[in-house]
Amino acid sequence: MSSIPVTMLTPTLTAARTASLALAGSPTALKNTALEAIAAALRANVPAIVEANRADLEAGERNGLSTGLLDRLRLDDARIDALADAVLQIALLTDPVGEVVRGSSLPNGVKISQVRVPFGVVGVIYEARPNVTVDIAALALKSGNAVVLRGGSAAENSNRVLVDLIQGALSASGLPAESVQTIDQFGRDGANLLMRARGGVDVLIPRGSANLINTVVNESTVPVIETGAGVVHIFLDESAPLEWAVDIVHNSKVQRPSVCNALETLLVHAGAAQRLLPEVLAKLTASGVTIHADERTRELFPQGVPATEEDWATEYMSLDLAVAVVESLDDAIGHIRRYSTGHTESIITNDIVNAERFLNEVDSAAVMVNASTRFTDGGEFGFGAEVGISTQKLHARGPMGLAELTSTKWIVRGSGQVRA
Amino acid sequence: MSSIPVTMLTPTLTAARTASLALAGSPTALKNTALEAIAAALRANVPAIVEANRADLEAGERNGLSTGLLDRLRLDDARIDALADAVLQIALLTDPVGEVVRGSSLPNGVKISQVRVPFGVVGVIYEARPNVTVDIAALALKSGNAVVLRGGSAAENSNRVLVDLIQGALSASGLPAESVQTIDQFGRDGANLLMRARGGVDVLIPRGSANLINTVVNESTVPVIETGAGVVHIFLDESAPLEWAVDIVHNSKVQRPSVCNALETLLVHAGAAQRLLPEVLAKLTASGVTIHADERTRELFPQGVPATEEDWATEYMSLDLAVAVVESLDDAIGHIRRYSTGHTESIITNDIVNAERFLNEVDSAAVMVNASTRFTDGGEFGFGAEVGISTQKLHARGPMGLAELTSTKWIVRGSGQVRA
Repeated sequence: MSSIPVTMLTPTLTAARTASLALAGSPTALKNTALEAIAAALRANVPAIVEANRADLEAGERNGLSTGLLDRLRLDDARIDALADAVLQIALLTDPVGEVVRGSSLPNGVKISQVRVPFGVVGVIYEARPNVTVDIAALALKSGNAVVLRGGSAAENSNRVLVDLIQGALSASGLPAESVQTIDQFGRDGANLLMRARGGVDVLIPRGSANLINTVVNESTVPVIETGAGVVHIFLDESAPLEWAVDIVHNSKVQRPSVCNALETLLVHAGAAQRLLPEVLAKLTASGVTIHADERTRELFPQGVPATEEDWATEYMSLDLAVAVVESLDDAIGHIRRYSTGHTESIITNDIVNAERFLNEVDSAAVMVNASTRFTDGGEFGFGAEVGISTQKLHARGPMGLAELTSTKWIVRGSGQVRA
Repeated sequence: MSSIPVTMLTPTLTAARTASLALAGSPTALKNTALEAIAAALRANVPAIVEANRADLEAGERNGLSTGLLDRLRLDDARIDALADAVLQIALLTDPVGEVVRGSSLPNGVKISQVRVPFGVVGVIYEARPNVTVDIAALALKSGNAVVLRGGSAAENSNRVLVDLIQGALSASGLPAESVQTIDQFGRDGANLLMRARGGVDVLIPRGSANLINTVVNESTVPVIETGAGVVHIFLDESAPLEWAVDIVHNSKVQRPSVCNALETLLVHAGAAQRLLPEVLAKLTASGVTIHADERTRELFPQGVPATEEDWATEYMSLDLAVAVVESLDDAIGHIRRYSTGHTESIITNDIVNAERFLNEVDSAAVMVNASTRFTDGGEFGFGAEVGISTQKLHARGPMGLAELTSTKWIVRGSGQVRA
């Protein structure tokens, strides 16, 4: 842990708390006006954003960042336009604050209702993805939360410009600029300070590598919502229609291999392996996918790389796929229980009993029948942007949108009642 | 931290995981049968429970436990009967598992629904209250969770008998006995092991002293739901009706002073102090309440003990009350923001604008108008028993019942859809 004093973050957190009180009391229309102002500011300042981003990209190249990371870091005209669109999309969503979740009238006439309220101050620790800065600022603003951002140093210049633009738009709209703050100026210490800011930060969300997330989970005294890795499975059941098997497996693996809802392990029922695997694997290899095959798969597909124990637990995030033949639905579920990270699993089947068993017995954030695993996504689910995809069970599970950035409180209205 | 190996808990946690899978797939009727069997076993074994409890009470007396703690530890015929009643009450509640929280049909025809599922394995660390053993076992069972209990050593004999009876009733009903396990045999190490059982325990709930809860929050790598202290406030607004003020303050303070929803600080609007305080304080002192008064209160009530800074932050849990005169609603809200633990606050008023401001601007688990703070309670809210009262904002806030012991998962049903 860092040796710099926790108090270094006090001015930031005090300002965030004050801003959060103003945000919590702000009407939806005012928050939407600010979101529109942010989108306009992004569009009006494309050259400045691209220039700051170029500095980050050049530093990244000097520091040997991978092509994948450099791609995530890059902002260009089209991507900035898409970011502005996402902000406007969030302005169109229903405000979660004030939603009545449930309620009742007690036998003595006291009325209770549970309503959504903002968390207050949300901390986010993430890595070199400047689009996350805008997405999370917009989601936090709409849900009435002040946010303190610790982005990776690799995106420091981009994030500084983006936060400046956001703060300017907030001020111009009549909301506190401190609703969105960055602590990138503290470098790595910033993350450590956030993890120790119990009371100052209401919830901490790490987004990034397994390493980052483990560190936050182990070190943080602030409540954490984890966004985790996806060792995602598809099981081709004995009755799986060939066309669905071919299309869904290909889409799940190839459409965007570098993200957490992409397929990593394919399981095939022994009774259907001969019927399904040749075509399924042919389409994958035609798209450049390397097949890491168990022994029984290699009987049908000799060109497969022999799979090792490690393959079953690997989130490749690349054009690689582990493939195993299993004896039964039970064996498929057993394999998933052992190796899955609880993100997304899908069964391809025409058997209604097996479909229901899979849905009931596989315990992941999203469990699917006859659909691509790529659908586990805030945008696809209709949430606008997403804060991340939670693979843990507390508070939020699966894609996190606006509702997941809120807590609740109980409103109790009486007329003099006391407890007997 | 303990130096004993984490693996010491492995057999317990493995058995709990296996039991949790059976529970997750158990129909409501079977869980209810087991709850009825538990209630019957409690009623049929009163002498054995009382005898084991006597051993704990005698040890407690030898170890100098306070009268309050000894009272919480004590089980007698009437209390065991009430425990059995609570278990039957939980059998009557709606099963939260399978409840559809929300859902939609995506533009491409894919159907998504978010349904409640059990957490899996719940760990609970608590102190010398054997009734918690039964309450939590029953709530966990109904919500489909296996539970691993670490009760205080002060209640070790009582808990052993209770867990034996519960396990017998589970087995007789056809559910795994390991659905409810105690790890009291590991002594203090048990709690440390639970906190490090990431992956083996899905959520950890500490119930007890602030010290216990702080330790768990700081040390645990398992997600924690905190149940916190209650520095509970009532604000008597300028328009507060005298009768409501007198009755609600008295009920909130005196009805059961040792619990977390009991009143600890009374704030009075300066414009109403003369009208309200004499009668409010007279009724309290007649019930033996010691008044810790600020200067302006002492002008009206000279026999008050001068309040110190410490009084405003104290959860007395006794017949003591801190009282301050404030200039305005804003000052009352400011005081509450500074000193409240976010449990429960109530305003007594006849002014509708002030009532709404109080409800909106005070950010506590329960915010009330014209009602006793003693209503913040799972039983009063209609939840049957309660796991505890959460004063944090993640996952659960306020009284935690069955729904708060569940997570959710997304069920996705397609017919061959892939992502464009």
